[in-house]
Amino acid sequence: MSYAHASRLTTTPDPIVPDPTDPIFAMHLGGKIETALRCEVRDATDLSRAYSPGVAQVCTAIAENLSLADTYTSRASTIAVVSDGTAVLGLGDIGPHAAMPVMEGKAMLFKHFGGLNAVPICLDTTDADQIVETVVALAPTFGGINLEDISAPRCFEIEQRLKDRLDIPVFHDDQHGTAIVTLAGLMNGATVLGRDLASLRIVITGAGAAGVAITKVLQRAGVRDIVVCDRQGIIGSHRGDLPPHKRQLAATTNHRDLSGDISRALRGADVLIGVAGGTVPETAVSRMAEDAMIFALANPDPEVHPDIAARHAAIVATGRSDYPNQINNVLAFPGIFKGALSVGASRITEGMKLAAAEAIAACVPHPTPDRVVPSPFDPAVVASVTRSVARAAQMEGVLRH
Amino acid sequence: MSYAHASRLTTTPDPIVPDPTDPIFAMHLGGKIETALRCEVRDATDLSRAYSPGVAQVCTAIAENLSLADTYTSRASTIAVVSDGTAVLGLGDIGPHAAMPVMEGKAMLFKHFGGLNAVPICLDTTDADQIVETVVALAPTFGGINLEDISAPRCFEIEQRLKDRLDIPVFHDDQHGTAIVTLAGLMNGATVLGRDLASLRIVITGAGAAGVAITKVLQRAGVRDIVVCDRQGIIGSHRGDLPPHKRQLAATTNHRDLSGDISRALRGADVLIGVAGGTVPETAVSRMAEDAMIFALANPDPEVHPDIAARHAAIVATGRSDYPNQINNVLAFPGIFKGALSVGASRITEGMKLAAAEAIAACVPHPTPDRVVPSPFDPAVVASVTRSVARAAQMEGVLRH
Repeated sequence: MSYAHASRLTTTPDPIVPDPTDPIFAMHLGGKIETALRCEVRDATDLSRAYSPGVAQVCTAIAENLSLADTYTSRASTIAVVSDGTAVLGLGDIGPHAAMPVMEGKAMLFKHFGGLNAVPICLDTTDADQIVETVVALAPTFGGINLEDISAPRCFEIEQRLKDRLDIPVFHDDQHGTAIVTLAGLMNGATVLGRDLASLRIVITGAGAAGVAITKVLQRAGVRDIVVCDRQGIIGSHRGDLPPHKRQLAATTNHRDLSGDISRALRGADVLIGVAGGTVPETAVSRMAEDAMIFALANPDPEVHPDIAARHAAIVATGRSDYPNQINNVLAFPGIFKGALSVGASRITEGMKLAAAEAIAACVPHPTPDRVVPSPFDPAVVASVTRSVARAAQMEGVLRH
Repeated sequence: MSYAHASRLTTTPDPIVPDPTDPIFAMHLGGKIETALRCEVRDATDLSRAYSPGVAQVCTAIAENLSLADTYTSRASTIAVVSDGTAVLGLGDIGPHAAMPVMEGKAMLFKHFGGLNAVPICLDTTDADQIVETVVALAPTFGGINLEDISAPRCFEIEQRLKDRLDIPVFHDDQHGTAIVTLAGLMNGATVLGRDLASLRIVITGAGAAGVAITKVLQRAGVRDIVVCDRQGIIGSHRGDLPPHKRQLAATTNHRDLSGDISRALRGADVLIGVAGGTVPETAVSRMAEDAMIFALANPDPEVHPDIAARHAAIVATGRSDYPNQINNVLAFPGIFKGALSVGASRITEGMKLAAAEAIAACVPHPTPDRVVPSPFDPAVVASVTRSVARAAQMEGVLRH
């Protein structure tokens, strides 16, 4: 592998003075999304059908049979993209106003790749109770809830409580989207290397939203040997004062009872998955097993520079679009929601997530070290994920009607 | 005046079994609105600008200067159309799911007539505290809040508390939209009849959202003699156990201290404004003064049948699109919000409402008995209201930045 743009990785953006002619700011002028009409309003007849008095017939029909809201309103094709702006990209807690461009971007991707309507909902609160109550109150308007850029550990509690309270899919993309695409990449990586996924020794650095979700989906996919590290080192039963989500990791991972720092964890490991930011030193990476895989997913600065990673691993993936093997959530969330909504699923199950990962992996019929995941612009991806997720939902019987 | 379709007024719709080929239901299939992209996503370059990593520059700029959210997101052109489904059209408390078609219709009208994005937000709560907290939490996403079909008296409290808490316009259209267009119609009606608006004796039947708001805007426009009736008759200091909003009406109207039913109120009155539903008997209407005006605005069944009204009044207006003089809120709300948002107004003041009414009235340069308000399809209306409202906001200095 060679990286023509590797030098870019070392630059960190300066504080921004917006230049409206800069291509990025120009693209954002006035926002990236808008609403549009699905029917015409040419004259008084149209108006009397789309609005008063005709609309009263549709309202009355729905009042008598709530499920008709899925047929005669946009609800069943509309997602709320909900954030409190506390964990935006690599920027952290920048607040709800500053999070808007990301949520609009997400809404754009939902439409472009999935044909779904998505509405940014940036909340002026970081209180878990209030976020839950707000989203529950909003639910009649939406067919699904995509949680986005909400910091750990609140994101776990908020997602779980919303799943318990609502009968529409609730999906924290930073957790599950990342986990699903990572699993797809690892499946194809294992194929390239002639390995069995379940037998791999996997180290995950980062015990936040993505780290927890990756651990769970890998376990569900049969992986047995997972060691998770946070800033204090390897997570295990030897560690005191862990918050609940890390206590759970300690209980379900690190079966060889390792302790120490990430260097210790990586000794002989087959896979490193970075979802922590920061840097993993080359000395640590150099201790990995032959034919290793390094998925360094922090954006824009991967935990291991791709050039360095390539010296020690057979397969390298990042979160960046300008390198091969981009682990990009857009491969997952449009098809997952489209599939779930197309059959009126009430939730997104572990089985549906696995089905999505398998569908994504299968979109690369002949994986190579530089191509373990498909391109986001391959139209087969959404179609295939949609079909697989819909089928899984039907098989599991998690349907609203 | 002659009414070709008068017979329609006597039919009340039966319970609905939806027929998807019926033109009304066909128009609603899948909903009436959707989201759309304002920029292209053709390739990885577009993706890297609209989404990660490029979007981080825009987020950072907004985090450093929150007002840039108005420039680089859709916020400044996007309205939340918020309802709890408790007072939908003439249907009453039909709940948030069944209210969706009306809110989508409203969103459609915002776009079609005002070029503004509007998002239906139908809330699964009728608790005033929770509605207020929910809308406050949503505010970073929106440039304005249009409250819709929330029952009285909660609507008064909810609107006032939101105005106190938010720095973006909050406007309960059932109150102020109706009041503004009614005022515009009365202004032109007074012109047609050679009368001075301020000298008219006006009776309002209905002391809910619209009745209260019409009273206030008429007083602001100089009208002195207003008598409001509810189901128990004339509201005044003689009435015991009135709720707060009616106590306020008792204190500011009915200066001649009338008591009794609407027949008593209408004796010698120049104007009847019906915003109550039900029927005002012809015997009562027949006691009005010469050259009376009857604005019977209940939809679909006006408080006075237009044929009957025409026997006793020189000018008749209704809420219906199939009769002359439709008092239609769509004449007001698109221009009001467009004007307010175009200058970044922090609220919609009484002065801005009066300016809107005057602009609407002025769009009919030569009013006649059958034409006291313009057509909603006259493109001059939105442009004129927008200009007048923006100018009023600037003059009053109620700007966010």
